[in-house]
Amino acid sequence: MGSTSEAAAVDKRVDFANYFCTYGFLYHQKEMLCDRVRMDAYFNAVFQNKHHFVDKTVLDVGAGSGILAIWSAQAGAKKVYAVEATKMAEHARQLVEANNLHNVVEVIEGSVEDVDLPEKVDVIISEWMGYFLLRESMFDSVICARDRWLKPNGVMYPSHARMWMAPIRSGLVDQQMKDYEESVDDWDCFINETKCYYGVDMSVLTKPYTEEQRKYYLETSIWRNLHPNQIIGTTVVIKEIDCLKATVNDIRTVHASFSSSITAENSRLCGFAGWFDVHFRGSNTNPAQQEIELTTTPSEDYGTHWGQQVFLLHPPPRVQQGDDLIVNFSMCRSKENHRLMEIDLSYEMKQSGKLLPPVKNKIFIE
Amino acid sequence: MGSTSEAAAVDKRVDFANYFCTYGFLYHQKEMLCDRVRMDAYFNAVFQNKHHFVDKTVLDVGAGSGILAIWSAQAGAKKVYAVEATKMAEHARQLVEANNLHNVVEVIEGSVEDVDLPEKVDVIISEWMGYFLLRESMFDSVICARDRWLKPNGVMYPSHARMWMAPIRSGLVDQQMKDYEESVDDWDCFINETKCYYGVDMSVLTKPYTEEQRKYYLETSIWRNLHPNQIIGTTVVIKEIDCLKATVNDIRTVHASFSSSITAENSRLCGFAGWFDVHFRGSNTNPAQQEIELTTTPSEDYGTHWGQQVFLLHPPPRVQQGDDLIVNFSMCRSKENHRLMEIDLSYEMKQSGKLLPPVKNKIFIE
Repeated sequence: MGSTSEAAAVDKRVDFANYFCTYGFLYHQKEMLCDRVRMDAYFNAVFQNKHHFVDKTVLDVGAGSGILAIWSAQAGAKKVYAVEATKMAEHARQLVEANNLHNVVEVIEGSVEDVDLPEKVDVIISEWMGYFLLRESMFDSVICARDRWLKPNGVMYPSHARMWMAPIRSGLVDQQMKDYEESVDDWDCFINETKCYYGVDMSVLTKPYTEEQRKYYLETSIWRNLHPNQIIGTTVVIKEIDCLKATVNDIRTVHASFSSSITAENSRLCGFAGWFDVHFRGSNTNPAQQEIELTTTPSEDYGTHWGQQVFLLHPPPRVQQGDDLIVNFSMCRSKENHRLMEIDLSYEMKQSGKLLPPVKNKIFIE
Repeated sequence: MGSTSEAAAVDKRVDFANYFCTYGFLYHQKEMLCDRVRMDAYFNAVFQNKHHFVDKTVLDVGAGSGILAIWSAQAGAKKVYAVEATKMAEHARQLVEANNLHNVVEVIEGSVEDVDLPEKVDVIISEWMGYFLLRESMFDSVICARDRWLKPNGVMYPSHARMWMAPIRSGLVDQQMKDYEESVDDWDCFINETKCYYGVDMSVLTKPYTEEQRKYYLETSIWRNLHPNQIIGTTVVIKEIDCLKATVNDIRTVHASFSSSITAENSRLCGFAGWFDVHFRGSNTNPAQQEIELTTTPSEDYGTHWGQQVFLLHPPPRVQQGDDLIVNFSMCRSKENHRLMEIDLSYEMKQSGKLLPPVKNKIFIE
């Protein structure tokens, strides 16, 4: 049997087992359908830009329950193809029928890479965004659909996407360190007991165990809906994507060098937060009447199911207002699972005019 | 892309993704190595029956960290093959080396179905038991190893296994019903809001959502370490397995009809608990000097990481001491994933001489 690391070439059925099955549950669909920020943005994008939909053909990529396909039809589309890889396609079909749109919306169970449409489309609509935008690598499928099925003057919903980062403070940094230390202490007990009761010396595994736990507690990004006052420095766009033009190569890796100035008075730099926004602007030749934004930025009032991804620093350095951070950020897909991400994040700090030595961090988005 | 239900024929890499990866973490190994009931049973089985190991060849199927292989070597084995499918094999190899047993224990990374040994073995040792014994279907691999590599007079560690059931009482029945009802109420709110705010009638999904939630909260077995006083009737062996003789056909399904008498005075029949024990008895021609038992029965003093599987009844009927239950139990493997189980459990109750109508239940071990 093959080992996981040999599975670099993506096997479709392994991918299905790992990834798609989650989306086969109505419970999970409901969570996304209850995300008001997400729902309002797509709803307004469609209904405030009906000119993009009236008498047009639309393709919904990864349709899930089919809500975007239904809205597209309600906004006046002539024909909507709703492609969904999981069994959720059956529910989407029921929903389309119950809302009397079966003459307009055609639900197709299958992956968009394999699908064969009878025509090209005017609009591709898709809610493809994962944590920190690119986790899940679902935009690959949207790109594939666009290159195969979008008319030359077609528009993308959303049309643009951006990734953001900012330095933050958070008590998480202490909690995670505490959990990590407890786990390591617990292991030491275990080693002693196994030697004492069962005559086996397991101490050779202390290093790999510690590394495993370090990765889990300290080096894996954490989902949070942060409060805006946890942001302690200037926020920065690290990546911009034009959904009409981006290639898979453009999004396979993200490299960014940026500066951020500390704005908080006296704080700890506990880590960085990463989030995204997308915009619905139509295209140059066929712009939106009302531009709509969907943002997952830290907000006092609204959380989203995406939240923000928190990348912690251990230990968290003290920072003062006016300190400057120079950050090198590099994200690529995990070799074991192309839907997960690995990040190299290093930073240097200029404190009272003095440049401190660089600090390197490895972070995993699991 | 194929749907999950088309994946009935087991694809090895899908299976690996679904199943084996869990066992690649030391954290998970540690949980099993900290299960004192499990550890003591195997330790005593080996060291109180050294005659089975001294100068013998041993095969450890699904060796994990390699602890059973190491004990076998420490008990005097001439040669031990430790076969492990996951990357844990590397750690097993380190452990063997650190305990100076690399001249005896050979760790082989691969599945036991594919492995090629240079000789047949005197002993097959394996900790293959899943929840309610058969979840994970790992005994299939042990049977395969036995048929290919065990000498005619070889012995199996363990040699026998039994599945047990008993009627129980448990507050879980109320908790799960409460969670289920809350989830359904919440859905009703969601339906109203989606209609009101977004103009889509989702009520056609109420039935499948309710079924999905019913399955999750009410029809999926629950892991628990029960207190013995939660058992309210006679306990029954529903399946006996001779590890030396059993075929995959013998364990693919489990059918049992049995009676149990209520022994508690005035109680509710909240469901049934299922657990297992295994014995280390050697073989007829080569018996153990000390028979060892590993039991996962409800115990005041010891829990195991296996616990018991609880199959709840909704609603739970009132029962009196002396009531008789006639139970029909039928378990088969899930079509979607052969390592999971589906159970049909029906019962009739004889109450004060009167036979009540049968009640049927579907239960999933996920």
